[in-house]
Amino acid sequence: MVARGETRTVRVGGVVIGGGAPIAVQSMTTADTGDPAATLAQIAELAAAGCEIVRVAVVHADVLDGFAAICAASPLPVVADIHFDHELAIEAAVRGAAKLRINPGNIGSLDKVDAVIDAAGEAGIPIRIGVNAGSLAEEYRDRDWPLPDKLVASAVAFTEHFESRDFTDIVLSAKASSVVSTVQAYRALAKLVSYPLHIGVTEAGTSLSGTVKSAVGLGVLLAEGIGDTIRVSLTADPVDEVLVAWEILAALDLRRRTAELVSCPTCARCQIDLIPIAEEIDRRLRERPSALKVAVMGCVVNGPGEAREADIGVAAGQGVGLIFAKGEPLRKVPEADIVDALMEEIDRIEGRTP
Amino acid sequence: MVARGETRTVRVGGVVIGGGAPIAVQSMTTADTGDPAATLAQIAELAAAGCEIVRVAVVHADVLDGFAAICAASPLPVVADIHFDHELAIEAAVRGAAKLRINPGNIGSLDKVDAVIDAAGEAGIPIRIGVNAGSLAEEYRDRDWPLPDKLVASAVAFTEHFESRDFTDIVLSAKASSVVSTVQAYRALAKLVSYPLHIGVTEAGTSLSGTVKSAVGLGVLLAEGIGDTIRVSLTADPVDEVLVAWEILAALDLRRRTAELVSCPTCARCQIDLIPIAEEIDRRLRERPSALKVAVMGCVVNGPGEAREADIGVAAGQGVGLIFAKGEPLRKVPEADIVDALMEEIDRIEGRTP
Repeated sequence: MVARGETRTVRVGGVVIGGGAPIAVQSMTTADTGDPAATLAQIAELAAAGCEIVRVAVVHADVLDGFAAICAASPLPVVADIHFDHELAIEAAVRGAAKLRINPGNIGSLDKVDAVIDAAGEAGIPIRIGVNAGSLAEEYRDRDWPLPDKLVASAVAFTEHFESRDFTDIVLSAKASSVVSTVQAYRALAKLVSYPLHIGVTEAGTSLSGTVKSAVGLGVLLAEGIGDTIRVSLTADPVDEVLVAWEILAALDLRRRTAELVSCPTCARCQIDLIPIAEEIDRRLRERPSALKVAVMGCVVNGPGEAREADIGVAAGQGVGLIFAKGEPLRKVPEADIVDALMEEIDRIEGRTP
Repeated sequence: MVARGETRTVRVGGVVIGGGAPIAVQSMTTADTGDPAATLAQIAELAAAGCEIVRVAVVHADVLDGFAAICAASPLPVVADIHFDHELAIEAAVRGAAKLRINPGNIGSLDKVDAVIDAAGEAGIPIRIGVNAGSLAEEYRDRDWPLPDKLVASAVAFTEHFESRDFTDIVLSAKASSVVSTVQAYRALAKLVSYPLHIGVTEAGTSLSGTVKSAVGLGVLLAEGIGDTIRVSLTADPVDEVLVAWEILAALDLRRRTAELVSCPTCARCQIDLIPIAEEIDRRLRERPSALKVAVMGCVVNGPGEAREADIGVAAGQGVGLIFAKGEPLRKVPEADIVDALMEEIDRIEGRTP
């Protein structure tokens, strides 16, 4: 729909961010970093859902050994999330972090920030400068400016400081819990800097409001070509963050990982209990990479039209489902067999043994 | 964030669409239209969730009496959703519909469309011309054009036909199941016509993908000032469509109905099981109109910052929650009492007796 903004390139382990690379999906573990087994199990789940970069909080020195073990065994590049304590950032860099995320505004002093920059430089890893409305540096926090201006000024000032130390291996973020402030801040940043942008709405909320706020905010930005890596923040299982992130990318035809499911909103025309059927097909389709477009329709109004556009689908009515492929009817099955029959045909199309 | 596009004004019962009026939230019943009690019960639920205009499918003549009973008793203006059969549209207009929704492309002939236009004119009600990728008029369907061009050409041709009969009481929609096609079609329509636009992504899918596709698609359009009334289509309970619609409007600061809840994404810093607490607060807040901003935070990193911005909130940690208002601590409560204590303080602020 639009051209992506041009940015520098940053490497996080094996994943490239910026410079036109595919928009990378991130999430963050919630397990105790001091418990590498639990955290690695969560990383495995996140990776299976399509997470490409994982962030792990390093809260105090006690978890540094756990963090090292996680970095050593993680299938995904691990970003150390640090607040307040620059020593933890330095130690995380030594222990295998693929990137550091700090908010220089809460590290305490520029001297301490410089020590982190030097540690990252030595380890050859990038730093995300993560400015956040909830933890703005004091000198900006109390200014009588609109929030987006404060976020942008703070972020740009930090990049300039990093540049003054010849460190440009930077990813930048400036998040607010307000979608409008977030969008305005990133629009300004995209004009002012050439660093890849990590975009997200912070403290977006529970499953419903967080999903919508992230989809609206990241959707608007991505549609304008802004954003090189995304994190959806939900007060929910981080696996859900990854699923929502992929849905956002798919909605804009930017990246797709699993089959595209088109299903109708059911109305008084619908003569079958379509919701559980569609949900079950959705669940099964999310388990496997696929490039197919699948339609699940409950009536004849839009069914035939969508059928023409889909690779495979079902039009359901009065206890039966008609399976079709590329608009041609394949077979009629009873309601109870719709899901299995459809998945069987998908297996056939994709050359899997059912 | 942006100025809204200028459009004409259309009245649907007591609700104004277009001309700068607040963006109206719509949904559609799934109960049998022939069962007015069931449909009215669903309309009551939708109204309680914030639905402002409700669409009801009129599938065949058997349900016309039911439809009339629904129109007579509904607290919301009722839109008759008609496909294929122009007689049903004419009968619905006579029986109290506040608006007709037809897709002229599947009505059969322009003569039949004209009969519907005349009926609406006589009843003094508007018509939504609802063009849909799944049921495009044949003359456009088979053209070798990009889908958005087909949708737009078909929609504009129909408005011109309506104008030729001096009927301009029109709301226009052109939906596709592809977000990108939908956005492109509406962008073009907003430039070409001055009729209020009903925006939505059709057959958006199950709860997760439908929510994200609608939020991205409608979010991008609304952020550009396009869209006068919205319908979120989900293969789910229509009440969810209304909740998602309001979340989209709230995300862009366009309209807000219930309190704004800011909650953190929980991470390894979080020492409390925050998700069920946040979900329960979310559920209770959705039951009451409110203009408050409420923060539910699981740690001290962004908690204090968000606390400053929120009207009331809780910062939770290690079995306790600290309730604060306007950034000032009010009281400390055990984990089990967080939800009740927070709601109690909200009641106090809003002058309700707890």
